[in-house]
Amino acid sequence: MRIKFLTILTLFSVVLFSFRADNPIRIVFFGDSITQAGVGATGYITKMSQIVAKEGLSGKYELIGAGIGGNKVYDLYLRHEEDVIAKKPNIVIIYIGINDVWHKTTSRTGTDADKFERFYNALIKRIQNSGSQVVICTPTVIGERNDNSNENDGDLNFFSGMIRKIAENNQVKLIDLRKSFMDYEIKNNIENKASGVLTTDRVHLNEAGNTFLAETMWAVIKNL
Amino acid sequence: MRIKFLTILTLFSVVLFSFRADNPIRIVFFGDSITQAGVGATGYITKMSQIVAKEGLSGKYELIGAGIGGNKVYDLYLRHEEDVIAKKPNIVIIYIGINDVWHKTTSRTGTDADKFERFYNALIKRIQNSGSQVVICTPTVIGERNDNSNENDGDLNFFSGMIRKIAENNQVKLIDLRKSFMDYEIKNNIENKASGVLTTDRVHLNEAGNTFLAETMWAVIKNL
Amino acid sequence: MRIKFLTILTLFSVVLFSFRADNPIRIVFFGDSITQAGVGATGYITKMSQIVAKEGLSGKYELIGAGIGGNKVYDLYLRHEEDVIAKKPNIVIIYIGINDVWHKTTSRTGTDADKFERFYNALIKRIQNSGSQVVICTPTVIGERNDNSNENDGDLNFFSGMIRKIAENNQVKLIDLRKSFMDYEIKNNIENKASGVLTTDRVHLNEAGNTFLAETMWAVIKNL
Amino acid sequence: MRIKFLTILTLFSVVLFSFRADNPIRIVFFGDSITQAGVGATGYITKMSQIVAKEGLSGKYELIGAGIGGNKVYDLYLRHEEDVIAKKPNIVIIYIGINDVWHKTTSRTGTDADKFERFYNALIKRIQNSGSQVVICTPTVIGERNDNSNENDGDLNFFSGMIRKIAENNQVKLIDLRKSFMDYEIKNNIENKASGVLTTDRVHLNEAGNTFLAETMWAVIKNL
Repeated sequence: MRIKFLTILTLFSVVLFSFRADNPIRIVFFGDSITQAGVGATGYITKMSQIVAKEGLSGKYELIGAGIGGNKVYDLYLRHEEDVIAKKPNIVIIYIGINDVWHKTTSRTGTDADKFERFYNALIKRIQNSGSQVVICTPTVIGERNDNSNENDGDLNFFSGMIRKIAENNQVKLIDLRKSFMDYEIKNNIENKASGVLTTDRVHLNEAGNTFLAETMWAVIKNL
Repeated sequence: MRIKFLTILTLFSVVLFSFRADNPIRIVFFGDSITQAGVGATGYITKMSQIVAKEGLSGKYELIGAGIGGNKVYDLYLRHEEDVIAKKPNIVIIYIGINDVWHKTTSRTGTDADKFERFYNALIKRIQNSGSQVVICTPTVIGERNDNSNENDGDLNFFSGMIRKIAENNQVKLIDLRKSFMDYEIKNNIENKASGVLTTDRVHLNEAGNTFLAETMWAVIKNL
Repeated sequence: MRIKFLTILTLFSVVLFSFRADNPIRIVFFGDSITQAGVGATGYITKMSQIVAKEGLSGKYELIGAGIGGNKVYDLYLRHEEDVIAKKPNIVIIYIGINDVWHKTTSRTGTDADKFERFYNALIKRIQNSGSQVVICTPTVIGERNDNSNENDGDLNFFSGMIRKIAENNQVKLIDLRKSFMDYEIKNNIENKASGVLTTDRVHLNEAGNTFLAETMWAVIKNL
Repeated sequence: MRIKFLTILTLFSVVLFSFRADNPIRIVFFGDSITQAGVGATGYITKMSQIVAKEGLSGKYELIGAGIGGNKVYDLYLRHEEDVIAKKPNIVIIYIGINDVWHKTTSRTGTDADKFERFYNALIKRIQNSGSQVVICTPTVIGERNDNSNENDGDLNFFSGMIRKIAENNQVKLIDLRKSFMDYEIKNNIENKASGVLTTDRVHLNEAGNTFLAETMWAVIKNL
């Protein structure tokens, strides 16, 4: 999640779809390095745009990436006005939390649980007040072993539980990526490897991971 | 710095001085648990009010505490509108950074240096744009040993260096508490104790610490 | 696990059973604070001695506690000659690993996985070479939540997996406490509490925990 | 300090000087990756051998490297019999402590201060009892900034203080590398860089560092 900053101008102007006839539904994906990479050639937002096209819905959706490497929930708060609200999206998908947990062990700069919740609630309120629908996601994986033996699994499960409650409390739609990914690993990660199934490095997604993420998210988004 | 939240209403309405004849200079002290305790019976803001009174300037200054235990720079950002700008102060003293360093070792939830700087700059700009003068401080101590052998000294010195540059870059006045406290420890902490000179527990100030802090800050504030 | 040192003389001379007629089977329990407390009034070694008595086997077993608070695997290595081999036990139950994981988050002084394995193997070899049978245990719990959402669960599960392999590689008997405790929590910790079921503080055992541990260990020991 | 294990056979048979006429003084350097690299082409032990040769003393000294990457004080304890005592050295130079501090921040597997002291004392006693003279060193640097603003400086200074007392308590000769290196940095690291003066990466020595270390150690060793 520690990818160097791209020029913000470049980054956020990556508008994948913009057949603006009939006001397409504008969706901003707001997140960290996985979302930053999501607009790349094999990224999950690009993959989702291909699914959308296959379903003959290209004109109906505009997908916008707003991810920056290393971001935690409070970094989203710092830049939500400029990078999300200013874009006037119909829908905002917040996918954050991996670095809030992971940086505890990489650099002792993770996020306290109570503050995670406070910033997340504030962020949802601000974006909702601007008129957008908010959808939130549980974090995916830090290590792909399927038996809860990855070092950060305890915290990842705990933060996922918090996010499920935040969704409930704020009555926003939840995409439970943690559950989907763990189910996938149990079924498909036969050798119980730490990486190489859906990720390249335990965290960042390989092409299979991006495809699976795109499909998992799209199954919810298309029915919003 | 991990003190339970007081009711915010109670906390921030603690206005120590309010002889509002002739529009006194309103100063908000914006910080963490040391500032939260600063409005207590022997806290540094209370001490400063006594100094002000002694100098016959009571009517001229209104000192307001806005400290919350456990706060880091991003927590100040989250609440600066409500807790600072809404109070329309003339001067805002930002005294933050101890938890940004300390929580690295207590709970692995410290603050990355680059983010510390980014949030600090954003905070200064927002408060300046609202019309208040900003003054910033380096952090005091986490451990009072005077030979740079307290566990967090490396980072505290590094963050202090960053804050000095932030002051310079933003052309705001600096109160170099770190330097003042270290000078004091070298002179007075003969036995090289980890606590008990200016603090009770290596971080939170005893009465001598509060008095010294009040004097050190006041020497700058009176000349603003 | 950070209990102050008792006088070592006192500690290790606590011989609970010593009806030495017909050479009882001498068992040393070698571990950390849980084992140190194990010889207390409601500790697991005391509980086991009561089970042994109930089964009419008091004369047949001599149970000796050799636990010191805060110990990790390398601390056992440092004191194994004096505190275990010198006692010429028939059987040595090694129950270690909680602090090797836990201290990562309390004080950044946990144990690297590869070194854990190296010291554990060396310890087993030394004790076996002295003529005692070795039995090893997986660690119990750091937090009692039953859904792998305790902060240290990832590492605890990983270290438990290592210990199972160490048992296999060294062909020593294993007592899989981790599995027994997790099964118990799933069945009995209905509210998914972090402590209060088998522990007082997420780690150290309450009376129910000591009883459960005594029963679990005894079921293996009686059949050695 | 996390260098992969070389075959131990290879590593420890690196005997730089062995003109055994008249029983040369055999010196084992017992340490971590810096000592492991010390027998390389530009390593400090190789550099010292060149100094010895220049002083016309080649036949008088036999210098043996016994360093393994990633070692902390307890790792030295684990292998002191095989790697030091078995070599029957006249003098043993123990140079350890960097990883005991550094791994706190890289992997949360540093060493508690009280255990550092306990293992160090045990190690000295064991080696002394085998008939060798022991000399101990304070750790060099983790970051070369000269104003105590490297993240680990607090702990490095604290552990150095402990080692000075260990030397005093055990009445063994001390080589105060920490002091020598800090003095060097203050004088020569004009730009206050974190690396590149005596190290390549804040910890491991470049050629200048190896030369300076060789000279600093030799000044003490030649007068033993």
